[in-house]
Amino acid sequence: MIKKFTLTTNSRDEMIEITSDVQNWIASQDIQNGIAVVTSLHTTAGITVNENADPDVKKDFLMRLDEVYPWEHPKDRHAEGNTASHLKTSTVGHAQTLVIEDGKLILGTWQGIYFCEFDGPRSNRSYVVKLIG
Amino acid sequence: MIKKFTLTTNSRDEMIEITSDVQNWIASQDIQNGIAVVTSLHTTAGITVNENADPDVKKDFLMRLDEVYPWEHPKDRHAEGNTASHLKTSTVGHAQTLVIEDGKLILGTWQGIYFCEFDGPRSNRSYVVKLIG
Amino acid sequence: MIKKFTLTTNSRDEMIEITSDVQNWIASQDIQNGIAVVTSLHTTAGITVNENADPDVKKDFLMRLDEVYPWEHPKDRHAEGNTASHLKTSTVGHAQTLVIEDGKLILGTWQGIYFCEFDGPRSNRSYVVKLIG
Repeated sequence: MIKKFTLTTNSRDEMIEITSDVQNWIASQDIQNGIAVVTSLHTTAGITVNENADPDVKKDFLMRLDEVYPWEHPKDRHAEGNTASHLKTSTVGHAQTLVIEDGKLILGTWQGIYFCEFDGPRSNRSYVVKLIG
Repeated sequence: MIKKFTLTTNSRDEMIEITSDVQNWIASQDIQNGIAVVTSLHTTAGITVNENADPDVKKDFLMRLDEVYPWEHPKDRHAEGNTASHLKTSTVGHAQTLVIEDGKLILGTWQGIYFCEFDGPRSNRSYVVKLIG
Repeated sequence: MIKKFTLTTNSRDEMIEITSDVQNWIASQDIQNGIAVVTSLHTTAGITVNENADPDVKKDFLMRLDEVYPWEHPKDRHAEGNTASHLKTSTVGHAQTLVIEDGKLILGTWQGIYFCEFDGPRSNRSYVVKLIG
């Protein structure tokens, strides 16, 4: 069981919650217990699991990450100019693994799954969800 | 095969080794070869695999991470005040995947599994271990 | 299906692409659909998925990471002196999970798998690939 999802992003840095997209698809599949691997297909956008309640966490998160890996750096050589995006992606991870029990993702109360755009806006971003029962 | 573990943490930042808890439970299960997904159920506490020998590594690790993501930041908006905890959690990861061979975790000589508290102390932390054979 | 790979590294910090080693082995195995867990057996070397095209990305990546976690730090206590290596390893991750479809890794156009040396050079580094179908 595998599915590719596509999405459009609207800012250079953006965290887009995908929890219900992933969960709804899992609910439609023939799996009760197992794991789900959620993987970005990009090197400048990753996946993370973080707070799903206060939207200010996302703002702080992206602001702080941008301070640690600033967009411009005098020593960068990469001609495309998006070195920081690559570092942010490896820091949060290109993929995350979630546990499925009784047909549902096991997530803590405040945990949501996020597609993390670090070099947007882009109209053709995608990620894959693979289920193992 | 799935099990939820609970633990109490004692400091704001703390790395608690859980290798033997995870290994002992795996040994009691009917699995010889596969993987174990160890996942925190929190957004301010994660899981990482790192050195199990010199305890100074843990001290340095938490001190350095606190410098990269300082507790107080003039631009933070999140009212709860624990933005840094969220960043540390996504940096180390909310979950880690380990390989099982002959009923045991495959770990390098110095590798241990850690529950990483970044917003403690807390009396009701938990993580889940899921085995896939 | 499991295989241990060994490699030699040549610098203190180095990203060595292992995509074709992993892919070629998977192609020789009896698996069509599933996942591959690629895990370092070290606490000072990790695994990440990042850009496989411009080699300057690797240079920038390692330079930036070295600024965030400098080799020398006045407050470090770990006598071995490689605290920064431990932090870099947990930041990129000790392991990554990839999806397999039709006998091949699902990777985006620019995604490659890297063994990340953070305390080299070393002659006896190793990582394990485990397949789950």
